[in-house]
Amino acid sequence: MNGSTEADYRQRFTKAQFLMADAGVDALLLTTPSEFTYFAGFLTRFWESPARPWYLILPASGEPVAVIPAIGEVLMARSVVRDIRTWSSPDLIDDGVSLLADTLKQLRVARVGIPSGAETHMRVPLDDFAALKASLPKVRFGDDVGITRRLRMVKSVAEIEAIRTVCRIGERAFARVHEIAREGTPLDEVFRRFQMLCLEEGADWVPYLAGAAGQHGVADVISPANDRPLAKGDVLMLDTGLVKGGYFCDFDRNYSVGAPSDLVASAHAKSVEAAKAGLQASRPGVRACDVFHAMDAVCSVGSGTVSAGRMGHGLGLQLTEWPSLMAQDETVLEAGMVLTLEPVVETKNGFMIVHEENIVVTESGAEWLTKAIGPDMPRLETA
Amino acid sequence: MNGSTEADYRQRFTKAQFLMADAGVDALLLTTPSEFTYFAGFLTRFWESPARPWYLILPASGEPVAVIPAIGEVLMARSVVRDIRTWSSPDLIDDGVSLLADTLKQLRVARVGIPSGAETHMRVPLDDFAALKASLPKVRFGDDVGITRRLRMVKSVAEIEAIRTVCRIGERAFARVHEIAREGTPLDEVFRRFQMLCLEEGADWVPYLAGAAGQHGVADVISPANDRPLAKGDVLMLDTGLVKGGYFCDFDRNYSVGAPSDLVASAHAKSVEAAKAGLQASRPGVRACDVFHAMDAVCSVGSGTVSAGRMGHGLGLQLTEWPSLMAQDETVLEAGMVLTLEPVVETKNGFMIVHEENIVVTESGAEWLTKAIGPDMPRLETA
Repeated sequence: MNGSTEADYRQRFTKAQFLMADAGVDALLLTTPSEFTYFAGFLTRFWESPARPWYLILPASGEPVAVIPAIGEVLMARSVVRDIRTWSSPDLIDDGVSLLADTLKQLRVARVGIPSGAETHMRVPLDDFAALKASLPKVRFGDDVGITRRLRMVKSVAEIEAIRTVCRIGERAFARVHEIAREGTPLDEVFRRFQMLCLEEGADWVPYLAGAAGQHGVADVISPANDRPLAKGDVLMLDTGLVKGGYFCDFDRNYSVGAPSDLVASAHAKSVEAAKAGLQASRPGVRACDVFHAMDAVCSVGSGTVSAGRMGHGLGLQLTEWPSLMAQDETVLEAGMVLTLEPVVETKNGFMIVHEENIVVTESGAEWLTKAIGPDMPRLETA
Repeated sequence: MNGSTEADYRQRFTKAQFLMADAGVDALLLTTPSEFTYFAGFLTRFWESPARPWYLILPASGEPVAVIPAIGEVLMARSVVRDIRTWSSPDLIDDGVSLLADTLKQLRVARVGIPSGAETHMRVPLDDFAALKASLPKVRFGDDVGITRRLRMVKSVAEIEAIRTVCRIGERAFARVHEIAREGTPLDEVFRRFQMLCLEEGADWVPYLAGAAGQHGVADVISPANDRPLAKGDVLMLDTGLVKGGYFCDFDRNYSVGAPSDLVASAHAKSVEAAKAGLQASRPGVRACDVFHAMDAVCSVGSGTVSAGRMGHGLGLQLTEWPSLMAQDETVLEAGMVLTLEPVVETKNGFMIVHEENIVVTESGAEWLTKAIGPDMPRLETA
């Protein structure tokens, strides 16, 4: 599916147990897609329906237990999890809560850890979580002491290859943007056609596409595409998060419709230089904030703040993961961490060039997972 | 964007205030994409990143307040919300919690309602929610007494048209499946190409695609596609949730590779008949369970249970919403509810035909939003 083997899952689980024992956590309780894929190799698009809660329990000793809707039994049976308990979901009275409570009771857990920090949420109705706690008054439900973050932040060889593969797919799609975008093409048409290219080049699906087009770069990177036709001198930015085997890439490319202005051309070159500075600053022992400052020094933002709040982040089974490349984040880099480098260079009047590449931290430094581009902006045809 | 006007949003907000006053709830606290789109017309794919929490407050009196990351300010300023408060997110120490707490204090709320039941979750880190509660010890954070469910379950004219539009897109894509699938085409290639068709026909994006292929129908509808080539006699099922303007369709089509067996052909015809029975049973005053039983009677499942747990559900800004078409759900239908009808007919050995159409409940009955198909299965070419 994505290159991770039964031995990989076994190792993740064993490491989690080691950290749980150390922290006095009796079990991890997991509820989200990325956690199910990471620890069980369970991958489905069915999560798009919020109707059913799913639970995966990793006890500090013993085997993992899946407490899931019956509709997931066939797929879970193909995973590394052997102890699968199901109920007919949805159930408007008791949607798996009593089955989960019974399971936790049987496992004799006193302290349950749930991922609770940045980049996480608990994917179950608040009512269900409240009912669970009420039915197990002696169990302490707290955070997971950062165990899942710590494990997932450092990728295995198979995970790095999976991300490299999806980066290649994104690159092939970006290399074909000239086929679908030129002066006069409406932006929403570019968005639709670009997603088609990503699929044609091998993406399983396209969970994320952002972008914009404007004369001095982009002012807002999160709005949906409008139907404004690309104009001569526009900068077109496309930023995509593709998925293959559950793993994301997350990088962007900027295109100039015709020749870029000097202002845009130099901002683009500076953004490429900043990403390079980020790569060069990345190695084991360096902190996330050091990488941020290395890029920020080139971008000349100076203030240490950007509207996006950071200049990159971890990447893997989520579009964004830990750490954050920002002044505040002192996470120490380790070999195997996969990061996006996302420098921002202002042009004028609130417009900017946003550039993004993906890298992996190695034993001796870092290397590109994307094929980093040169300073010159690729050009799209004018009418 | 999707046809909803400022007056529509105003009306939703006013209705929510009416229900809040009635229930003694001082404010609704909303955190998810569908809630932001429904009440503020705020639509973005940026939610794919779990890095930043977003909050929308609807007070029982006064104007709505958005407490959001600075990166969303430009887009939110184009929405109906005028009071927008931002912080630089991510913030590893205080990711908007104190700004949110200050805002709630200023609004003098004693009881805050959060959507907490089926089909919901709270999209913020548990740590942040705990910090919020700790900083406002006198405020009671409880459920929303079903207010958002009650409002969102009955669609406006604009919402129904938005869903009809996306159903049309899905239909046009399904009508072209013969272009991309025939004996010998690997299933994962069919999945990729079908998503391309959906985009080409006008989808903004394709958040959901499920399906399978097998000789007697499908056994498991949630697994990702494998690379097994379609074989003569296979039933290919494709079930898609497309989005246009934030609104979903959710329906499927079944195809036979060559001629279907008698068993498959009759199961398919029965599933189509069951959906028709579901439509005929749907009208204001009837309960969700009545519609379920009308379909179940045709499908001859008899037991009143199906592995999917239900035979359809609400549809709108989420792939699945309230109510659930199942024996347990006694929700009374009202004009404006949009439903999927999803009967399941078993063939043999755990295989089944799953058929799905979308309908809207009208004043006098119900009508198709999809163009309901006839009993004969469309055929794909053999080699």
